[in-house]
Amino acid sequence: MIKLVAMYKTPADKELFDKHYFEKHMPLVAAIPGLIRSEVSKLNPMPGTEQQYYIMAEMYYDDMDSFNAAMATPEGKASARDIVNFAKNNVDFFIGEVK
Amino acid sequence: MIKLVAMYKTPADKELFDKHYFEKHMPLVAAIPGLIRSEVSKLNPMPGTEQQYYIMAEMYYDDMDSFNAAMATPEGKASARDIVNFAKNNVDFFIGEVK
Repeated sequence: MIKLVAMYKTPADKELFDKHYFEKHMPLVAAIPGLIRSEVSKLNPMPGTEQQYYIMAEMYYDDMDSFNAAMATPEGKASARDIVNFAKNNVDFFIGEVK
Repeated sequence: MIKLVAMYKTPADKELFDKHYFEKHMPLVAAIPGLIRSEVSKLNPMPGTEQQYYIMAEMYYDDMDSFNAAMATPEGKASARDIVNFAKNNVDFFIGEVK
């Protein structure tokens, strides 16, 4: 199993971010064919550290082939295109191989 | 549900890191009372970006009270103390509220 991990940096306006993220973006993600499950967490820094990231989203797929196929679908492309609407470049992506 | 998210930065020696992490550290983590489950992923950067993080570990607990109680046990303290043995300060921690 693999997962796409999206780490969103702390936005200037959390309320505005949440509205777009939960009401518009996550429904687009949920529609992607091949997505097994997703998990979204609000992140808090450990005491004494700055809040670098605000939201972590994990999208699980069977394997890299399945992930790449999903990203090539209209739904995958619509989800990718939507990111600029609320996060611009304020997001780091990783591919995780689940052990 | 909450989770402690540990993001380990890319080590100088991945083989040495893996040996300590999987053979010594994760068994210490698994022994912590109150831990519901853990998930470890090896991270790869998206093409064209640097590898900032190498391993992501997620440790799930019922709530913050359960997490704080777990960290106060001998097993929780042993796990925390062990981090300096293989990661020193090369790890970022977050508390995630799972939505």
